[in-house]
This record gives sequence, C-alpha cells and structure tokens, in this order.
Amino acid sequence: MNGPGRRVGRPRADRLRPDSGRPPRDEILCAAAELFTVRGYGSTTTRAVAERAGLRQATMYHYFTGKEQLLVELLESTVAPSLRAARRILAEAERPAEDRLWELCRADVLQLCGGPYNLGALYLLPEVRGERFLRFRRMRGELKDSYRALLGATGAAAELGGDAQALALRNDLVFGLIEGVILIHRSNPHRPLETFAEATADAALRIAGIRR
Amino acid sequence: MNGPGRRVGRPRADRLRPDSGRPPRDEILCAAAELFTVRGYGSTTTRAVAERAGLRQATMYHYFTGKEQLLVELLESTVAPSLRAARRILAEAERPAEDRLWELCRADVLQLCGGPYNLGALYLLPEVRGERFLRFRRMRGELKDSYRALLGATGAAAELGGDAQALALRNDLVFGLIEGVILIHRSNPHRPLETFAEATADAALRIAGIRR
Repeated sequence: MNGPGRRVGRPRADRLRPDSGRPPRDEILCAAAELFTVRGYGSTTTRAVAERAGLRQATMYHYFTGKEQLLVELLESTVAPSLRAARRILAEAERPAEDRLWELCRADVLQLCGGPYNLGALYLLPEVRGERFLRFRRMRGELKDSYRALLGATGAAAELGGDAQALALRNDLVFGLIEGVILIHRSNPHRPLETFAEATADAALRIAGIRR
Repeated sequence: MNGPGRRVGRPRADRLRPDSGRPPRDEILCAAAELFTVRGYGSTTTRAVAERAGLRQATMYHYFTGKEQLLVELLESTVAPSLRAARRILAEAERPAEDRLWELCRADVLQLCGGPYNLGALYLLPEVRGERFLRFRRMRGELKDSYRALLGATGAAAELGGDAQALALRNDLVFGLIEGVILIHRSNPHRPLETFAEATADAALRIAGIRR
C-alpha cells in the first residue's frame, strides 16, 4: 500500500507511526490541511506538519520546499476539480446555459465543502497575494471566467443588453455566493451536503435573475 | 489631540513617531488591523504591532492583554455597528419586512467593506473558535437571528408554510452572501461601495424569494 505514490524509494523505516495506507506525500498534505485549518497557517511550523504526518522533517523537505509550497498545493487542489468540471460543462454547447450554470454551481459547492477540512478558509490568508500563488490565482480566475461565460449565455443576461459592467457585477455576486458557502457550511456542517449544494445552486440562479 | 482618548495619563514621550491624532489605544488597534490582514495573524507579533503603532511594547500591554485581545476587539468592531442597525431596524415594526431586510443587508455590506482593512477575512481564522471569542460569536449569532426574524416576516417566507428548516437554510444563504461579499469586494475594491452594497442587498432579496 505504501510504495506506488512515492516519488523516490525512501526507506519504509521513515514512517514514525502506523501506516495509514497513504503515500508520504499525501500524508504530509493531509497533515498540513488539518493543521492550517484547525490551528492556523501562521501558527503552524513545518516541524509540526512532519510530526503530525508521522514523518521526519527531512522527509517532508524531500517532497516540499517548505510551508508555502504546502499551502500552494492545498489551494490549487481546491480549484482544480471545479476547473475540470467547468471546462467540461463549457464544452457542452448544445445544453441550455441555465442548466449548465446550475450544474457548475452545484459541483463547485460539493467540491468546496466536501473535504474533511475547510480549505476554502485559506483563500483569505494574506499570504495568497504572493508570487508563488500566481498559478492558483490564475486557476481561480479561469473558474470565475467560466461562470461569466455561462452567465453571459443565459436569457437573463440578454436582458442586461450587453452591459459588461452589470454582467461582471452579477457574476461577482454569483461567484461570491459560491465561495461564501465556505462560511455558511461551517456554521452547520451536519446538513446533508447534496441538499445544501442544490439549494445554493438554486440561490445562485435567482441572483443571476433566472426563473426556473 | 492626544490626551482625551487615553485611559490613564501616560507620558507623551511614549510615542515613538509623529502623532497621528489618534489615542494610543486606537493607534494600536489600527496597526493590528493592518498587520493581521496584510501580513497575517499568525505571523504578526505583539512587538510588530507596537512598532507599527509607534509605541513601546510595554505601552501596548498597558492597553491590551495580548494579541488575542486585539483580535477579539477588532472582530467585535466589525459586528457591533451592524448589530446596532439590526436592533433599530427590527424595532420599526410598522415598515414592511422586505424593505427592512434590504436595508439591513445594505448596511451590513457597507459596514463589512467600508473600512481600510478587510477585517471580515479574520472571521475564518481557526483561533476564532476559542473561548475568548464567545462574545463575538454571540454577537454574530444575534445579527444572524435578526436576519432570520426579518426574513420570517416577509411574504416570501409565508410561502414556506412554517417549514423552519427551509427558513433556516434560506437565511443561511442570505447571511452567507452578505458575509461572502468579503471575498467579492476584495476582488474589485475600486467599484463604488454604494452601488455594490445595493446590488448585494438586491441579490439577497432575490435569494429570499422576494420580488420587488
């Protein structure tokens, strides 16, 4: 269960605690996700991450250059699946834009709220403005552009008469609601996620001015 | 300009940089707001806050017990004005609930986005789950209850036929949009705040199922 995910053949004795079945790289990311969201990014040391993962600190540095790279990878992992969904949904040009926008909203909420840790909370860290987070910011930008493309193709957008600023504002509100679910979901994490995701997608369409 | 806001008569020589006209206590809170949101809460030391405020660290400890108390006060300051507005608006029982909900949304957005620093971003810090933030969490809870009270008094809520869970979910989405504006506003801080606040209040009413 241990070998395949490893980048190089580090000895098994490296592991300091019983094997979880995850490759060390994933174990480290998982430990970082927990500590960054539960204890706080600024208050977490790479040493604490390694310890939580049951690995030596040197092993952690074998896989990651440091704490910031851990944050980069965690943040990108929150956007990448939604971005893949967005590209697929955008390509389905024969379907009504309204249905596709709803589907993207729903998929994005499931993705943002689905993991064991509230990684979306890390979006607001000031560190994210740094250069190493450029790719993450671009990915998030592309995701937001996908929302705008779908929104712009709806009948409700046609009523704006080509007012690009009005469309951008409306898209900001839709996208903001979706990312805002981070806050909502945390306040009631025991609500069935499917119900919540669909209610949020419905709300997004109402913001978009779409009647269904 | 210096004396009146001070709690006790500390000597003027305490100030290490040209006087901003703010009492030291406010100067410290302002420095903390800047550093917590720009540099990060975890990465900021009380020493750095004192330096930024142009005061000695001992002076800072004269006003605050430590970093956590600074965070407590900053967070409470983001909710207190909206809570005052909510109490006033709730009392205006003769006005339609729809108008009052709209007004509360607008006031809350203006409040959350109006300051020089994005203090709402601090809501997601894991530290906020701690005991010292109980009053802040209660204040936020009361604000959210005010939203629910107004929402429950609208005609749109009557259509839910007394389904408390459905009302709570709808309120979560409205409240989540308002708190989510933290994320939206940061992505385009140069948009006129008034326009943005009114568009957000409109969007909140659409989520609530209210046609205006």
